[in-house]
Amino acid sequence: MEVRNEPARVRGFRFAGVSAGLKTVAGTKDLGLIAAGLPVSAAAVFTSNRVKAAPVVVASERVRRGRLQAVIANSGSANCFTGKPGLRLALDSCAAVAAELECEAAAVAPCSTGVIGHRYDFEKYRAGVKQAVSLLSEDGLEEFARAIMTTDTRPKTASTVLRLGGAEVTIAGAAKGAGMISPHMATLLGFIVTDAAVAPAILRSALREATSTSFNAITVDGDMSTNDTLLAMASGAAGNRPLAGRERTMFVEALSAVASSLARQLVYDGEGATKLVAIRVKGARNRADAERIARQVANSPLVKTAFFGCDPNVGRIIAAAGATSATLDPDRLELRVAGVRIASRGMLLVEALEAARERMREREFPVELNLKLGAGEATILTSDLSFDYVKINAEYTT
Amino acid sequence: MEVRNEPARVRGFRFAGVSAGLKTVAGTKDLGLIAAGLPVSAAAVFTSNRVKAAPVVVASERVRRGRLQAVIANSGSANCFTGKPGLRLALDSCAAVAAELECEAAAVAPCSTGVIGHRYDFEKYRAGVKQAVSLLSEDGLEEFARAIMTTDTRPKTASTVLRLGGAEVTIAGAAKGAGMISPHMATLLGFIVTDAAVAPAILRSALREATSTSFNAITVDGDMSTNDTLLAMASGAAGNRPLAGRERTMFVEALSAVASSLARQLVYDGEGATKLVAIRVKGARNRADAERIARQVANSPLVKTAFFGCDPNVGRIIAAAGATSATLDPDRLELRVAGVRIASRGMLLVEALEAARERMREREFPVELNLKLGAGEATILTSDLSFDYVKINAEYTT
Repeated sequence: MEVRNEPARVRGFRFAGVSAGLKTVAGTKDLGLIAAGLPVSAAAVFTSNRVKAAPVVVASERVRRGRLQAVIANSGSANCFTGKPGLRLALDSCAAVAAELECEAAAVAPCSTGVIGHRYDFEKYRAGVKQAVSLLSEDGLEEFARAIMTTDTRPKTASTVLRLGGAEVTIAGAAKGAGMISPHMATLLGFIVTDAAVAPAILRSALREATSTSFNAITVDGDMSTNDTLLAMASGAAGNRPLAGRERTMFVEALSAVASSLARQLVYDGEGATKLVAIRVKGARNRADAERIARQVANSPLVKTAFFGCDPNVGRIIAAAGATSATLDPDRLELRVAGVRIASRGMLLVEALEAARERMREREFPVELNLKLGAGEATILTSDLSFDYVKINAEYTT
Repeated sequence: MEVRNEPARVRGFRFAGVSAGLKTVAGTKDLGLIAAGLPVSAAAVFTSNRVKAAPVVVASERVRRGRLQAVIANSGSANCFTGKPGLRLALDSCAAVAAELECEAAAVAPCSTGVIGHRYDFEKYRAGVKQAVSLLSEDGLEEFARAIMTTDTRPKTASTVLRLGGAEVTIAGAAKGAGMISPHMATLLGFIVTDAAVAPAILRSALREATSTSFNAITVDGDMSTNDTLLAMASGAAGNRPLAGRERTMFVEALSAVASSLARQLVYDGEGATKLVAIRVKGARNRADAERIARQVANSPLVKTAFFGCDPNVGRIIAAAGATSATLDPDRLELRVAGVRIASRGMLLVEALEAARERMREREFPVELNLKLGAGEATILTSDLSFDYVKINAEYTT
């Protein structure tokens, strides 16, 4: 199955992205809308942060029924840490969409991203909603993806087509990331739509499975956002027969592939990122140990600055690996960076460092740590820590 | 009790710091020696990293008996991840010191800091030991402090004098830090000597107490080193009577104060640091919750870059606070940055931000987060994340 980093038409959905004036830079798109012709299957996963934005509170309540007709997402303001007025604003925002679409307000889910602690201007927002509804188009996914960008430098979309249940099914998505990207759903808004006919319960479990190997396996800065939302909607317009057994598995795999493509694009475009590095830990006693070590390495500022400097720094990687509670024997481990073995049996392979350094000039490379203790494996995608990360975050107010 | 950020004479100890040629920059001091006239009470705490340097393995074994006569510490090479040859090197190094001092090799503890994965040149080291022994002086603590520096920009020493058990007692110390500074003892070597008469068991428990509020309450980058060692020696030359009850408490407090002064100097001089920020969490349900939140905030790259940019960024601080498993109610919390209240009852106080921004230009300021849920409190000292942190770590091989 091929996944393209580009948008696609998905029967049953129309999209729009407009400039409502919510961002300070005039003319920048900041309001995106996805609308189905009627309520469709829906599922979502949200941030596990104890501080949840108002739209997260509202959307998580609404998606529980398993059906949504529209999603409205704005950038420029996270509407988080805004108390009761923020909650009111999120509800009013959905009502404004429902009025324009002539649907039930409870079938509209809100999402916000941008600065925390501030509310957006509702009059501007309402005018933007009107415009978005008038511009809804089957070809609008790219415009939608642009509208949800914050410090992203490019829109992120992905799509795939497969035969399933006797029909041709399309799965397409859009996401935004850049900062506060970390385990357990980060500042990240992700949207996946499909024309497959899928019951809400199956869509929900498929989305959870897809998340664990995609959005929950990436990190940019270890910071967990208050607004993370990954939402999926299935229109059923493909007319496939119910998915079960192998076909259900195929659907989950396709959904995971689209989610992984989006997640990968988020890390590639992480704030200030000049490298995309896959931290692969294998040979751990179990999967939990492998994941613990992979995350620790992936989030270490010392490791990430070494990536930026193309420095095959064995010391920082193994020091990070040893800092968790996971079982590890330094005398057994083997480390490869960018395909070059630079440590083995508790010793550095000095003569290999130059070759590793050379290969680290690539935009993407893997770090493979084999603990040689068991069968546990995990991979986390991360970026480097560059001057631009500091520049972006010392000057931009989240 | 007054603690000065300067060295002192401590009866029973002599110190030296020399240039043995272990560092690449010629003439830089890189070998420090502390020697007592005979074996004295000793205690130490070490890194909890699963990857332990050879000198940590040797020193932790030797200090277990509660008596040491000398400590030899080098910079320029961590002698970590160096396998059996590294262990041999650490043992030979102690033997060289013992030969010069004419003491038992088992009474010498080794410490190393610098690049991981490489061993130092033993012939240079041995010549350095000879020179160090010949230069031992009661006034040599400052020179010792210089010899253990890596990316530190200045030597760190602290001292205090108090009356205890009928005698005047001095406690003095030296430390190095700069990178891989984090909870649970980071790349950090710390040495504290006192002329107090203290039994090994009491010294050990006093050191543990002192560590929890000093070296274990700081972070620069959340990275945990493989070589962390904090070692204390007590010569007994002060001739005080045995310490018990209130006098034991006074000794712990004085030891803690010296340790805290050293720890504070480490953060102040953290790699690239332009700010020293005390993250104080209070009103948590319990102390563990308070500490969890304080650490999460103190290690957040987004929070630390905001400090660098003098940005009173409520969103990043509360998002970090909410990312732990600690109980937190956003609608109750109050946040002060640099003394200015900028959030209260789940809302941002927009009009206060300018005043906070102004005060964040100071070199030092506190962040106070009151959860208003209970009596749990914790403070963690941290630095900001600056361009220079990236510069230092993209170009320096740890």
